[in-house]
Amino acid sequence: MADKKLSGAGLRGQSAGETALCTVGKSGSGLTYRGYDIKELAEKVSFEEVAYLLAKGELPNQSQLDDYKKRLKSLRVLPQELKDVLERIPKDAHPMDVMRTGASMLGNLETEESFDEADAHIERLLATFPGMVLYWYRFTHDGVRIDTDSEELSIGAHFLRLLHDKSPSKLHADVMNTSLILYAEHEFNASTFTARVCASTLSDLHSCVTGAIGSLRGPLHGGANEAAMELIEDMKDADDAEQKLMGMLERKEKIMGFGHAIYRDFDPRNDIIKAWSKKLSEEVGDSRLYEVSARCEEVMRREKNLFPNADFFHASAYNYMGIPTKLFTPIFVMSRVTGWTAHVKEQRANNRIIRPSADYTGPESRAVPALNER
Amino acid sequence: MADKKLSGAGLRGQSAGETALCTVGKSGSGLTYRGYDIKELAEKVSFEEVAYLLAKGELPNQSQLDDYKKRLKSLRVLPQELKDVLERIPKDAHPMDVMRTGASMLGNLETEESFDEADAHIERLLATFPGMVLYWYRFTHDGVRIDTDSEELSIGAHFLRLLHDKSPSKLHADVMNTSLILYAEHEFNASTFTARVCASTLSDLHSCVTGAIGSLRGPLHGGANEAAMELIEDMKDADDAEQKLMGMLERKEKIMGFGHAIYRDFDPRNDIIKAWSKKLSEEVGDSRLYEVSARCEEVMRREKNLFPNADFFHASAYNYMGIPTKLFTPIFVMSRVTGWTAHVKEQRANNRIIRPSADYTGPESRAVPALNER
Ligand SMILES: CC(C)(COP(=O)(O)OP(=O)(O)OC[C@H]1O[C@@H](n2cnc3c(N)ncnc32)[C@H](O)[C@@H]1OP(=O)(O)O)[C@@H](O)C(=O)NCCC(=O)NCCS
Ligand SMILES: CC(C)(COP(=O)(O)OP(=O)(O)OC[C@H]1O[C@@H](n2cnc3c(N)ncnc32)[C@H](O)[C@@H]1OP(=O)(O)O)[C@@H](O)C(=O)NCCC(=O)NCCS
Repeated sequence: MADKKLSGAGLRGQSAGETALCTVGKSGSGLTYRGYDIKELAEKVSFEEVAYLLAKGELPNQSQLDDYKKRLKSLRVLPQELKDVLERIPKDAHPMDVMRTGASMLGNLETEESFDEADAHIERLLATFPGMVLYWYRFTHDGVRIDTDSEELSIGAHFLRLLHDKSPSKLHADVMNTSLILYAEHEFNASTFTARVCASTLSDLHSCVTGAIGSLRGPLHGGANEAAMELIEDMKDADDAEQKLMGMLERKEKIMGFGHAIYRDFDPRNDIIKAWSKKLSEEVGDSRLYEVSARCEEVMRREKNLFPNADFFHASAYNYMGIPTKLFTPIFVMSRVTGWTAHVKEQRANNRIIRPSADYTGPESRAVPALNER
Repeated sequence: MADKKLSGAGLRGQSAGETALCTVGKSGSGLTYRGYDIKELAEKVSFEEVAYLLAKGELPNQSQLDDYKKRLKSLRVLPQELKDVLERIPKDAHPMDVMRTGASMLGNLETEESFDEADAHIERLLATFPGMVLYWYRFTHDGVRIDTDSEELSIGAHFLRLLHDKSPSKLHADVMNTSLILYAEHEFNASTFTARVCASTLSDLHSCVTGAIGSLRGPLHGGANEAAMELIEDMKDADDAEQKLMGMLERKEKIMGFGHAIYRDFDPRNDIIKAWSKKLSEEVGDSRLYEVSARCEEVMRREKNLFPNADFFHASAYNYMGIPTKLFTPIFVMSRVTGWTAHVKEQRANNRIIRPSADYTGPESRAVPALNER
């Protein structure tokens, strides 16, 4: 039934629709959100401004931003039923599965009954995700039932506050802010595309976000920052890193945190998070993870002409801030939910169900044999 | 970045990969599972044989089938934590959201740690879905905590038994069997494609299935059988049906249960479920829903040259068996989980991350204005 043959597997290089949200790898600027270059956004604005931009189309002015942050802060309290569910998830579960379940449960308690309600549900998800994952994490790991509200107005600082029971330093809050900006949106990546396919059936927002979390969990996608951490944490120094990496390359292993489906030469997010990782290493006074990571970058460039993507230096940066490895991908969720949901709204506004064809490679037509003749 | 322009929206007619599982709309035979025509399967085999065929590649012989059914029966008991979660989902939630949450929760309790475990998790999901949705349904609607096991060996009869607290008639068990066969697999439909996109990130089985449930929920996809029921239940007789339908067509409303993304002339599943609906109407001694549905079919053919898809006569058939409307799409899940998971295994066996491109329609590059200049 297919009219056209694929140029490559994985729909690579095929257009699957239109978007006004983002460009990835367009010549001149590596990554833009609604026309704004990622570098400028990372330098000049807060994550909440980016979230607003993605949701509403334009950057907020001061009073819009103040209102928005106040509203998000007011939406942080979790329903008791959701907390009951989180308490029943075992300690050894993966936090991404916790978020997937939490987002889905919230959809039962606060169902999107009409697409007019989309913005309200988007804000609620954005506001509750840090508390959702950390309520579970602190309950199962520290035996405490935390208050999921805090005095911190920014989502990044709020997350660190709930995790560490203290207000983060300015440096840490700034790193979280940048990190959330870098992860917010990335065109038709696999998790966003999952959300759009789901939206194209006219399903509800929580279904779209729940599905996207499941896709982001994969080690080829968001899971790469955790895998990168596991890679670098055992490397004693730069030379050890080089030796271990060469061995992996010889054994043709994939190095998580390198390469990209669209970018060919570099990932514009890398320089930004790399610079923060360096600053954090200086603050902590322990340069091992940074140096090890920098050597990995060198070796991969030299040996495979591959470059670190957004995930690689995030591993050391998060680690320097005392964030447990298994909470890395959940931070990605807290940020990317802004991109996912903007895509859901865009898909709904001009929808046709996403239903591709496939090339058949199975058996010819055959008759069903009787049970006693098989 | 896109190399090719789309021929149509929604990836219609574009190949997004290969499959050995199914053909849809290939000339000669309307629908085949691994080479077997749907009509022959619906006549000659049980749903459990189809589930086995999709999972393992071939129809089982007698002893394989006996083992398989015994194993599925042994896997029906729900973990206590899952029951606790189900009890916290409100009565007015949609059962599809309940299943989405239940599948996700099960993924926390019984995580797929390695792809070698896929078959075991597939069987577990297949075995637990009827009990999962009905544990919640009976708890919230009837105030009882049901035993999720029963003496019924077939999944269809098991479902009816848990719902109605009594063993179903042979006719009802046969209808359920056919219905589950018809819904089991359908190539790259939106929910299956969701599962494949998720699988392509190398995420786990529960993430893939959870995401697929969210997509199936949409009214343009699995949700259509419920919408069809809402349509026909208010129609007093065939003439009333004609009048109401003509009004809807005049107002350019979409008629749920009609049309298809791939089939052009007819849906091969329709004749099969339509015949069962007729039989059921005779058994019940109430032909209204059947006659109303048949008239809708006539009118749609005459006015729009559109045909009923698998969902339309499922509405009356399920209703005749006393199944509440909101449990219609969950039955689809109990069946389609076989197709979804077979696709997940197929995707994993020859994987590249599914990451299409998009055509950009947003603002030109622009500079970030200062907050006080917006
Ligand atoms: C991101 C990724 C999934 C893109 O997949 P893709 O579009 O299929 O990749 P490409 O077509 O660019 O791959 C080209 C070649 O480089 C190799 N390659 C790509 N990334 C690699 C990596 N991280 N380590 C080793 N080899 C890699 C591929 O195996 C491929 O070689 P092959 O043709 O011999 O199989 C892939 O680079 C990857 O798996 N990276 C690691 C996971 C990761 O960091 N993901 C986060 C992305 S933000
Ligand atoms: C199944 C479905 C989503 C396929 O979508 P699609 O591939 O975009 O549909 P097509 O391209 O074949 O549609 C052709 C035309 O027929 C119209 N059409 C299709 N199904 C229709 C329906 N059920 N009622 C009224 N008009 C319909 C479309 O609106 C379109 O007209 P347009 O070009 O003026 O917009 C669509 O037929 C539909 O929405 N059906 C109702 C929901 C349903 O039953 N889903 C279950 C599918 S198994």
